[in-house]
Amino acid sequence: MRKNVAILGSTGSIGTQTLDVVARYPDRFRISALAAGSRVAELIEQAKRFDVPLVSCARAADAGAIRAALPPGTRVVSGAAGLYAVATESDAGVVVAATDGAVAFDAVFAAVERGIRIAVANKELIVAAGELFVRAAAASGAEILPVDSEHSALFQCLVGEPRERIASLILTASGGPFWTWERAAIERASVADALRHPTWQMGTKNTVDSASLMNKGLEVIEASRLFGVPPERIDVLVHRTSVAHGFVVFSDGNLKAQLAPPDMRLPIGYALAYPDRLPDSEHIDAFAALGAKSGAERVELAFERPDIERFPCLGLAYEALRRGGTVPAALSAANEIAVAAFVEGNITFGAIPAIVAAALAGTPDEDLSLASVRAADARARALARAAVEARFAAPAK
Amino acid sequence: MRKNVAILGSTGSIGTQTLDVVARYPDRFRISALAAGSRVAELIEQAKRFDVPLVSCARAADAGAIRAALPPGTRVVSGAAGLYAVATESDAGVVVAATDGAVAFDAVFAAVERGIRIAVANKELIVAAGELFVRAAAASGAEILPVDSEHSALFQCLVGEPRERIASLILTASGGPFWTWERAAIERASVADALRHPTWQMGTKNTVDSASLMNKGLEVIEASRLFGVPPERIDVLVHRTSVAHGFVVFSDGNLKAQLAPPDMRLPIGYALAYPDRLPDSEHIDAFAALGAKSGAERVELAFERPDIERFPCLGLAYEALRRGGTVPAALSAANEIAVAAFVEGNITFGAIPAIVAAALAGTPDEDLSLASVRAADARARALARAAVEARFAAPAK
Repeated sequence: MRKNVAILGSTGSIGTQTLDVVARYPDRFRISALAAGSRVAELIEQAKRFDVPLVSCARAADAGAIRAALPPGTRVVSGAAGLYAVATESDAGVVVAATDGAVAFDAVFAAVERGIRIAVANKELIVAAGELFVRAAAASGAEILPVDSEHSALFQCLVGEPRERIASLILTASGGPFWTWERAAIERASVADALRHPTWQMGTKNTVDSASLMNKGLEVIEASRLFGVPPERIDVLVHRTSVAHGFVVFSDGNLKAQLAPPDMRLPIGYALAYPDRLPDSEHIDAFAALGAKSGAERVELAFERPDIERFPCLGLAYEALRRGGTVPAALSAANEIAVAAFVEGNITFGAIPAIVAAALAGTPDEDLSLASVRAADARARALARAAVEARFAAPAK
Repeated sequence: MRKNVAILGSTGSIGTQTLDVVARYPDRFRISALAAGSRVAELIEQAKRFDVPLVSCARAADAGAIRAALPPGTRVVSGAAGLYAVATESDAGVVVAATDGAVAFDAVFAAVERGIRIAVANKELIVAAGELFVRAAAASGAEILPVDSEHSALFQCLVGEPRERIASLILTASGGPFWTWERAAIERASVADALRHPTWQMGTKNTVDSASLMNKGLEVIEASRLFGVPPERIDVLVHRTSVAHGFVVFSDGNLKAQLAPPDMRLPIGYALAYPDRLPDSEHIDAFAALGAKSGAERVELAFERPDIERFPCLGLAYEALRRGGTVPAALSAANEIAVAAFVEGNITFGAIPAIVAAALAGTPDEDLSLASVRAADARARALARAAVEARFAAPAK
């Protein structure tokens, strides 16, 4: 019996890698629905290749062309209603939430309420509204499986374990390209500098976030939401080689870690197959799996404490998590604006945390709901844009 | 509701550390029976301290003195029947098998047949007769929880995981005091040299076995028996700091590791509390748990491939495991004779593998039963003693 997989965001990086996994295990999975944005040609190609009965695109105007290109009987939908249909009406055993931002929140929430497993790669969803999703999942029995290396690591370490015995969680961070740089140099870093990530291949936004450690800060918030652990019991350790992705420290003094090569298809495959694991005919050399170079006699895993002085975004994320409510949503939204301004050359790298801090300062403490999250997101974007403008106007720019 | 704990071998190192754990968690555990050998005064002291209703000693002659020293109504037994009573008649929720050698095999086997959980620290039991115990446990539903750091590590990594998805197991080894020595120097090593273990405090026999890597070889056999994984999928990596104790490589390319400070009370506590974990009020610093020195900014976990040329005992253990049947029992028995001869100054360190190899050469391939194991053990001891005698007589000594 094959498991039906629906993908929200099928033409993005996680979407296409999910299709890679499904293509490799055709006896285990089939694609029951795909939703993409504006990459219509790619979406059509995917739908043909995987013989998909339900397809959604962002704009209603594209639906006709898609319908014309696909076999008769294919259901083609669009917009918010399309995402909703893909998430809830495709008989999916698992919905892969791989869109960016908040566009798919309602659709994913509806799937969670129906008890459908969510493989979540949509970071904002957990950062901004994780408490709502986790609460809904607890009520419906839906499983939320994280699709990123660190949270998949923690999830894997926690399989079969009593959650109330977690003493602390450790997320590893590669440290990004600026780990060895002085503070002043980091603040002046160029866009090209920020895009030189040592271990992972990712999109521009994520790569800049890795350079500022905001990425890790957002992951600390995610970990807190997914595993119900407060900020003071979540640590970050810098681990340059990105082999170990996460550790759980248990109340009895034992630790568990998960390690894997930096390949997103591993956490994707885990989220699809859980509680089983995918079989693999390839021989896995243990020494190589720990990161040993071919022919090496020794391999080392090194860990360092992070430095919030040089990487203030990490501190801002902890602050947002401690404040709770809609503050994490504001953090994420303001950071998006700040990173875009940096990539466009409008602000320095060092201004990113200043702009985020300005947005957090303008965010009130308020209760969490899908509506308040949306409002906080919009307000934080406006505050961040104003802060960018102020920098623009300032002689320092 | 407290869990009843019975200990076979209560005055040994694992026995006393088990009592430490029970003393620390008096609301979770109580001692329902103790069995010791000839350390009668210590046994009496333990029985008084933990108010134990059933006590066994090795010699019938000691029973009277014990009875006189303990409260009226205490049941005092002895010998093989005593071990049997402690293992099966004490209403134990878990029997800690912590005797040396084969003395408690029948008693533990009887407990397994009754479905009682065994926390097994008796290495010979799994090495020599693991298949029998694991088969009996599968039939009765008894759980076999390993009480040593490496197998507890693997067990912890496998909690909640599909066993058929194990690609390989990795046991770590400290490498012992001779890891950096040349082969010729190792062969000439003194008893004092062999007893300088870098990380663990253990008895003489285990410390010598760590120096020869026979200890790790025996653990490879144990891992194969406990987890049903063939020798070609069990690897050893030398890890000098003994922080990571074991890794499981899964078929999907993910790895899990368990790490802990070198303290036997951790695997003991785990085996008693499983599937729960013991709570602990002490703060566990994650960085320190990875082995970082106080004030350090960086901690490293390093792994190296082992070297069977310099440590032939490891190769002999793999050979015994591949041959199966009673050969692992012969390996363990012959090694015991060889190590004793080395510690007494009768043979060189380099002669240990030669003597074990001689015993393996004289061991036929035969079916496994508790009776054939016993016979193979006796035969291997005789073969090893003869090999020691031959070395004695030789001018090389």
